[in-house]
Amino acid sequence: MERSRRRIPEATVARLPVYLRTLLDLRDDGADTISSERLAELAGVNAAKVRKDLSWLGSYGTRGVGYDVDQLLLEISRELGLTRDWPVAIVGVGNLGAALANYGGFGDRGFPVAALVDADPAKVGSVVAGHAVHHIDELDDLVAELGIAIGIIATPAVGAQEVADRLVAAGVTSILNFAPAVVTVPTQTTLRKVDLALELQVLSFYGRRDSLRDELRGVDDESVA
Amino acid sequence: MERSRRRIPEATVARLPVYLRTLLDLRDDGADTISSERLAELAGVNAAKVRKDLSWLGSYGTRGVGYDVDQLLLEISRELGLTRDWPVAIVGVGNLGAALANYGGFGDRGFPVAALVDADPAKVGSVVAGHAVHHIDELDDLVAELGIAIGIIATPAVGAQEVADRLVAAGVTSILNFAPAVVTVPTQTTLRKVDLALELQVLSFYGRRDSLRDELRGVDDESVA
Repeated sequence: MERSRRRIPEATVARLPVYLRTLLDLRDDGADTISSERLAELAGVNAAKVRKDLSWLGSYGTRGVGYDVDQLLLEISRELGLTRDWPVAIVGVGNLGAALANYGGFGDRGFPVAALVDADPAKVGSVVAGHAVHHIDELDDLVAELGIAIGIIATPAVGAQEVADRLVAAGVTSILNFAPAVVTVPTQTTLRKVDLALELQVLSFYGRRDSLRDELRGVDDESVA
Repeated sequence: MERSRRRIPEATVARLPVYLRTLLDLRDDGADTISSERLAELAGVNAAKVRKDLSWLGSYGTRGVGYDVDQLLLEISRELGLTRDWPVAIVGVGNLGAALANYGGFGDRGFPVAALVDADPAKVGSVVAGHAVHHIDELDDLVAELGIAIGIIATPAVGAQEVADRLVAAGVTSILNFAPAVVTVPTQTTLRKVDLALELQVLSFYGRRDSLRDELRGVDDESVA
């Protein structure tokens, strides 16, 4: 069990949070069970992939009934390490850092914002979203004292690499980079990049398809999704 | 050609921006050609999938040489509709809206921020990131005058559905929702949701794996990725 779990493919790991969010919505709507087909539809994945992904958790569902929503929620949460809290430090308290500190979706999902850090002396000591802003030179102490598990880089592009270096030096092994910059870290550090323009590019694809559809309307209507 | 292009699978569409970003980095590093294996590695996808995805664009590469980076950039950009601009309206000018308005990664990638809109009279008329904030009642006019193609919802959860309704009523057919709320739109509208906590959940998976690895170190080291 332990062995197989730790070999879950990256693509499956990336889909687990999507299933989790879908299942939370379903539970809020009062659903007790869910078929793989329905879960697939809601998560935007095909049903065979859902079954394969969930089989990594040891979940196979019941034929004709589907999966137990609460059970699946528990298994995915456990797999994602969400049965404990992961205190977060946000580095860079401009608009983006402040927005993330205020974001409603972190704390109640196991990622309490534990520290805000900035290099600008003018910001140090101010209070944002209920947290005092600390100077980045205090990072080592904050990480040790507060058990910071994840560092979020919310600086402009130009400061991002230095912040990453300082987070790594302070012992943070998981970093989420919001700065529009390429950042490198040692191999034992897990780095994820959030690219806010990426979703816009997906939207423009569909927008472009719609424009083409309008142009072509009546010519080959049946081929339009 | 037209027919097949419009049937590109959703999962492929979602990966095209990742290839695009990878190729832009490669071009900046001076690369002229790229193998599917290397592109796959950099994009975190397997090579067979890269080749399949790119075949949807009519790109097959050259055996022993790979793909021409500039050519591929052009094809993906065209496919994603990035050869034109998609003016964006941001609704909700709190920290998140202001952060998005200031974000360096939008304008130079074909998504100029054209309008900022808020329902709070105290914010209307103020200037954020060089843009005057307009009242949401002006939305219809702004969309028509500025050719707004994409609406970004950057309000708190509670206002998100109303904003979506107003964007749809104003004729916006592509919406990106940053609010931590489930929003519904008519089927002809394309809606994408950005869940800022989702990447944290992926990080916590790997953080958890690392903790387990530390616990198990020496027991079955060879099974660790």
